[in-house]
Amino acid sequence: MSGAILTLNAGSSSLKVALYAECGERQLARGHADRIGPDGTLTLTDADGAALPVGAGPVATHRDALDRVLETLARARPEDRIAAIGHRVVHGGIAHEAPVPVTEGLLDVLDRLSQFAPLHQPHNLAGIRAAEAAFPGTPQVACFDTAFHRTHPFVNDTFALPRRFYDRGVRRYGFHGLSYEYITGELARTDPALARGRVIIAHLGNGASMCGIRGGRSVASTMGFSALDGLPMGTRCGQLDPGVVLYLMTEEGMDAAAISDLLYTQSGLLGLSGGLSNDMRTLEASAAPEAREAIDYFTFRIRRELGAMAAALGGVDAMVFCGGIGENSAPIREAVCAPLEWMGVVLDNAANRAHARVISTAGAPVQVMVVPTNEELVIARATRALTGGEAAQT
Amino acid sequence: MSGAILTLNAGSSSLKVALYAECGERQLARGHADRIGPDGTLTLTDADGAALPVGAGPVATHRDALDRVLETLARARPEDRIAAIGHRVVHGGIAHEAPVPVTEGLLDVLDRLSQFAPLHQPHNLAGIRAAEAAFPGTPQVACFDTAFHRTHPFVNDTFALPRRFYDRGVRRYGFHGLSYEYITGELARTDPALARGRVIIAHLGNGASMCGIRGGRSVASTMGFSALDGLPMGTRCGQLDPGVVLYLMTEEGMDAAAISDLLYTQSGLLGLSGGLSNDMRTLEASAAPEAREAIDYFTFRIRRELGAMAAALGGVDAMVFCGGIGENSAPIREAVCAPLEWMGVVLDNAANRAHARVISTAGAPVQVMVVPTNEELVIARATRALTGGEAAQT
Repeated sequence: MSGAILTLNAGSSSLKVALYAECGERQLARGHADRIGPDGTLTLTDADGAALPVGAGPVATHRDALDRVLETLARARPEDRIAAIGHRVVHGGIAHEAPVPVTEGLLDVLDRLSQFAPLHQPHNLAGIRAAEAAFPGTPQVACFDTAFHRTHPFVNDTFALPRRFYDRGVRRYGFHGLSYEYITGELARTDPALARGRVIIAHLGNGASMCGIRGGRSVASTMGFSALDGLPMGTRCGQLDPGVVLYLMTEEGMDAAAISDLLYTQSGLLGLSGGLSNDMRTLEASAAPEAREAIDYFTFRIRRELGAMAAALGGVDAMVFCGGIGENSAPIREAVCAPLEWMGVVLDNAANRAHARVISTAGAPVQVMVVPTNEELVIARATRALTGGEAAQT
Repeated sequence: MSGAILTLNAGSSSLKVALYAECGERQLARGHADRIGPDGTLTLTDADGAALPVGAGPVATHRDALDRVLETLARARPEDRIAAIGHRVVHGGIAHEAPVPVTEGLLDVLDRLSQFAPLHQPHNLAGIRAAEAAFPGTPQVACFDTAFHRTHPFVNDTFALPRRFYDRGVRRYGFHGLSYEYITGELARTDPALARGRVIIAHLGNGASMCGIRGGRSVASTMGFSALDGLPMGTRCGQLDPGVVLYLMTEEGMDAAAISDLLYTQSGLLGLSGGLSNDMRTLEASAAPEAREAIDYFTFRIRRELGAMAAALGGVDAMVFCGGIGENSAPIREAVCAPLEWMGVVLDNAANRAHARVISTAGAPVQVMVVPTNEELVIARATRALTGGEAAQT
């Protein structure tokens, strides 16, 4: 019987699961439930990427997804014992600069933070409750997407509102912190001199944000209070004039639920492409002018915010692309970078098309890189460290 | 009897008036009513800056302010006849790329645009109505703050919302266009090679925005749909996560009127300074840490957006400061520019303290300038050109 660490990332209609060896960093299995409900799908693969059987029929609930993953793992890997469980939690609030063990007191605190992330936080907490029910007494750890950004200086933590709002928690939290922590750690390992400098990481997936990092610490992020701000995303609007929200209220007669639904689920690439798709691969394959315009807007806003992040850092030594789009779309990386020669960005087009680790030319002032991110591994490491696994001593 | 051109700029509680000779560009008089109401003040000065008597007692209404200005001018300059009147109008919508003569049809169109600028447009239109009543039959011209920005490419005109909102007019209009037009014209006159390049203008007054200009045409602006977005201002928030507005609705129970009041009148420098002041001069003279933090936020956001505008332009050849703060505060200009050496900005500190026209060092890649703006003159020129004055032929 050998101990294993389970990581959970529960979204509104998705559940990502990974299983790690308690010692070392080997991923033993990974699962992904999507569109949970009448059309819910579930895939589970072993360490070699081979599919494991998860039973027939749609995945109706998060609990259903978790149960089927655990049953399959119990059959496929009977030697494993879940020693600890790590969770991705979108919001840790002001107090949490690092992962912490789950306690009843912590869950109360995190529950109160749901007001700041109503579309994400309740699902994360439901994932913790479901894991508690499935593994009573097993240590659990919460890893926060906000924690990495708690080093922001005041100018990148506040909005220009009356101060009572800052005191109540209306701040520029920033998210995708687990991804930024992974990339920062990778850079420190492979390019320590670069990691001490000024680095901009672009995490471009269905959610997307950028982070400006100096000396390994987050200085600024394009995401702020909520997961809406900054870059346009699959279905989220990104940066929006607050006057537009006032217009939606007064002139279009929309209430908070309707506006929230519009900005979180109908906007971004999906909205701009005229409803074509929220998936960059579909848009890249489309000949529709709306698809091209949506892509152009996406790459323009990334470039615009690269300039802004560089200004926040006082210049830039390296840029890193990660996330599904950042790791896999050479055309997007090229469209972002080609007009950035004024900033010292010179792309090596062959290296870019080959998805090489370094995609800038040898002498270019800014080193541009593609580094696959691994949020699950960050969760597994923290969980191991906080629950007394071997790596806690390293 | 010699013809004169009157320019009017009517705000919610202010009225700015200027009188120009019909031929040439000489300003004959200027007036400014502020805090119109029980405490309303009015000043009027002649071409030499000497005060003209405007009667005792508070200026209760916009009409009161206009009447007192006109009575005083009639006594002080009996030889003048108002030949045409030019108005600053905040919103010209999609259709107007230049000033136009006022007609009943135009007023209907502009009235419908009030939905996009509810706090400004109705006052501008009331100013036109008041002038029509005071000078029946006299030609009037509307000059739009949005017109200069109609050259924005799609990526800087749209938000990532479903396309029906773009079609309905939810766009990144940009404002302060009369100021940008003046500065661009000045640059073309004094530095034609620079004016053909990439220029960022920072209009920093009680309202504040920046504009990225290439070859004399506006490519991008920090202001978007409303006068709220972009840089923090005296009492306006500037850039705000749309999630904050949703939070104000759902968690603080605020309605549109309360949110609008918060974001337009209680935020910005006033809110961040803990209610100390919306006036930069007061904050600069204060020893309170909140005043320093408000200033730091202001200069940081300007610097951040300078990076963003440079990215939108593909680099920058010149930066111009204008507006009350931009023209008069050397410390603000220094705080903005000092950390921008990575962009090629090198300030000449002595020139900056002397408010010289060029405040960058001789060899610096980016020429930084201070150019006093003159929106009234832009209105007067357009009014003259459209109403058949002599300059129309030049």
